[in-house]
Amino acid sequence: MNLVADTLSLATEQRSLGPTNPVFPLLPALLSGCPVSSKEDMQYPLEVAYDYAAVTRASFRKGSGWNDWQELLPPLHPKMTMPVGGTPLVDVSGVAPRRFRGRGVLVKDESRNPTWSHKDRLNLFTVSAALHEGASTIIVASSGNHGVSAAAMASREGLNCVVLTMPEISPAFRDMILGYGAFPVFLPAEDRWPAMRLLQQIPGTYPVSNLTTVHTGHPWGPEGYKTIAYEILADLDGLVPAAVVVPTGYGEMLYGIYKGFNEARLLGHIDRIPQLVSVEPAARGPLYHAIKAGLSATTVHANPTIQSGTATTVNGYRSVVAMRESKGIPLLVDDEAARAAHAVMARQGLWQEVSSSAAFAALEDIPDLESDGPVVVMGCSTGLKETPSSMQVSVAKADLVSLRAYLKNEYGFDP
Amino acid sequence: MNLVADTLSLATEQRSLGPTNPVFPLLPALLSGCPVSSKEDMQYPLEVAYDYAAVTRASFRKGSGWNDWQELLPPLHPKMTMPVGGTPLVDVSGVAPRRFRGRGVLVKDESRNPTWSHKDRLNLFTVSAALHEGASTIIVASSGNHGVSAAAMASREGLNCVVLTMPEISPAFRDMILGYGAFPVFLPAEDRWPAMRLLQQIPGTYPVSNLTTVHTGHPWGPEGYKTIAYEILADLDGLVPAAVVVPTGYGEMLYGIYKGFNEARLLGHIDRIPQLVSVEPAARGPLYHAIKAGLSATTVHANPTIQSGTATTVNGYRSVVAMRESKGIPLLVDDEAARAAHAVMARQGLWQEVSSSAAFAALEDIPDLESDGPVVVMGCSTGLKETPSSMQVSVAKADLVSLRAYLKNEYGFDP
Repeated sequence: MNLVADTLSLATEQRSLGPTNPVFPLLPALLSGCPVSSKEDMQYPLEVAYDYAAVTRASFRKGSGWNDWQELLPPLHPKMTMPVGGTPLVDVSGVAPRRFRGRGVLVKDESRNPTWSHKDRLNLFTVSAALHEGASTIIVASSGNHGVSAAAMASREGLNCVVLTMPEISPAFRDMILGYGAFPVFLPAEDRWPAMRLLQQIPGTYPVSNLTTVHTGHPWGPEGYKTIAYEILADLDGLVPAAVVVPTGYGEMLYGIYKGFNEARLLGHIDRIPQLVSVEPAARGPLYHAIKAGLSATTVHANPTIQSGTATTVNGYRSVVAMRESKGIPLLVDDEAARAAHAVMARQGLWQEVSSSAAFAALEDIPDLESDGPVVVMGCSTGLKETPSSMQVSVAKADLVSLRAYLKNEYGFDP
Repeated sequence: MNLVADTLSLATEQRSLGPTNPVFPLLPALLSGCPVSSKEDMQYPLEVAYDYAAVTRASFRKGSGWNDWQELLPPLHPKMTMPVGGTPLVDVSGVAPRRFRGRGVLVKDESRNPTWSHKDRLNLFTVSAALHEGASTIIVASSGNHGVSAAAMASREGLNCVVLTMPEISPAFRDMILGYGAFPVFLPAEDRWPAMRLLQQIPGTYPVSNLTTVHTGHPWGPEGYKTIAYEILADLDGLVPAAVVVPTGYGEMLYGIYKGFNEARLLGHIDRIPQLVSVEPAARGPLYHAIKAGLSATTVHANPTIQSGTATTVNGYRSVVAMRESKGIPLLVDDEAARAAHAVMARQGLWQEVSSSAAFAALEDIPDLESDGPVVVMGCSTGLKETPSSMQVSVAKADLVSLRAYLKNEYGFDP
């Protein structure tokens, strides 16, 4: 499998999250979910297992960084040299609901990644796996952050990248996919699966997005999101947040954050993990409905929503596990509340995508939390990539005449 | 002046860069250049002076950060809590001109700042000065990164912000200015100065952009850019680059980078400073022409260029000083070369604005450098904010039919 000899990674194998947790070699990555426990109507994802007993370097205190966490991550391919993560916590306590202000409310600003979203953490490891396996062409089905990030990471490493997307993709995403050197294919929804099957037949192609009806995704991807938990602990110098509020689509980030905190707990660095709050668009919300119904997965209608980053119609089993293990709180947020929160965050200097603004809006609906500590809200991506109409920014036209009027109104100044 | 008692800053006064270098109190900031040495046809900027003999904490080795540099920066107002900077160096040696590959070519990716450009470093200090002076309203004349950044920083601190801009501003910049809660005024060029004069008459207003014919700007602003030099030294663990290539408009960043390295030298941490390479659009280039003519400043025609971030018609004296003191190399880059470099950088995972891509293009024209060490190229801002037409990304329309054709061409695959 061409794994690097001198890596510090203690990854040992792939482990299924399905019944009886069967294990498989670390590579090749199983891209269609657990081959043992999956059934026609339910596919189970895999994760990466580690030899935790051998961990010697992990540190989650002030000043720790990615170099301290290599043991707990899949083996990065040596060609992967793009710096990812290291994003800051931005204090927004002053505009948070009053009952949380004493704890502190912090936005983890993932828009400071290479392609300005959290997805770079995932693709660092999916593209690394592709390189380990000798792939020549990444295939990704996405009309958003995931496709853009995969395109950037793949191009940088000399891989081809085909992005299966929609004709109605936002212009910014389209330009970036093209600009990063990927080949976008604009397909109506019904052609997406046939195209994916066509591409998969070609030797050297390598999917980094989901291939199953119930979402399973690439087993190495969520491992990249664990670094969000590690970074939060490092920034807070070991203090554990009471909750982490996570905009949730397929739940890969949700699971990665859960797993990162849980590893720090297993290794004895912290004694509890934060409660995870999943935030989905009220018009969809498959995870919310799965949890309320006690199911492992549900499918919902593709109702319209402006929260495009989390507008999925099916959840993944990963997210159900993360919620169960973290005493998670599933919430729905409607578009109007998300849009209002977008404006509030922007006035804090945080121009986020609408689906992340929904996570800030969700603060209003969080019930009492079990522990002390701050609340961290995931800000996943810059709002600059979204179709402007989803923002509905009203454009004020102003000239000298209206400037004078404004000054008179605001300042009583009448020159 | 309400300066914070417990600040670690060793800033002592404002010092003119003009003849005889007269000094003035640290605040109020002199917003119209040196009042002693400026003449009708030549205005001189001011900078901040420090008690370097009292410096005890400064460190420029691996792991150092902003907390280690407080002595060397103006006193931040305690309300300023937005994390700025800490941007990574991204290796692009593989696509750099062959003669530089051995040295290493690194892009300092400033698109990882809060509003995705370097300007946040400047406005951290201009808005801080505004707060120290009790201002209520920031005024900024800008149709680009500066206005957006000032709007975000001002809003976050509860200040009003008026942005004097043009009707033809890019939609992304316009939406951000509005979204961050600023009041944009769309004015034709000839109304800009009258509007600025109108606004300045109002008590509590505070300009953070230039007010003089020859650019002088806010004396505290370039101090923020010194942290670019400090961060480069820290990332390289004290190794001094041979050159830093800087997209240059008014030269505030150019001067800040020079001054940061020079301070590290004065304090005995390094024994030389990098050569600065200024990069301006070939259609304009006031600094280039000033240096070639041995002048302190020149004015050029507002010829069209897509390098909007650096499309100034006049330079500032600061930039002439920075070039003289660093054995600087002034270069011009035409739009075609900038556009080609934009594509090369994007395929390295760096989607930069065109004016920063020009800095990468300039590598071709750099003559022999005096020292060993890597070359650092400033990547100032995300390309996402620019008007798409300046990118001229050709939109490929692809469906299943063209996908099959692509696969046949690229892979000889004919399903």
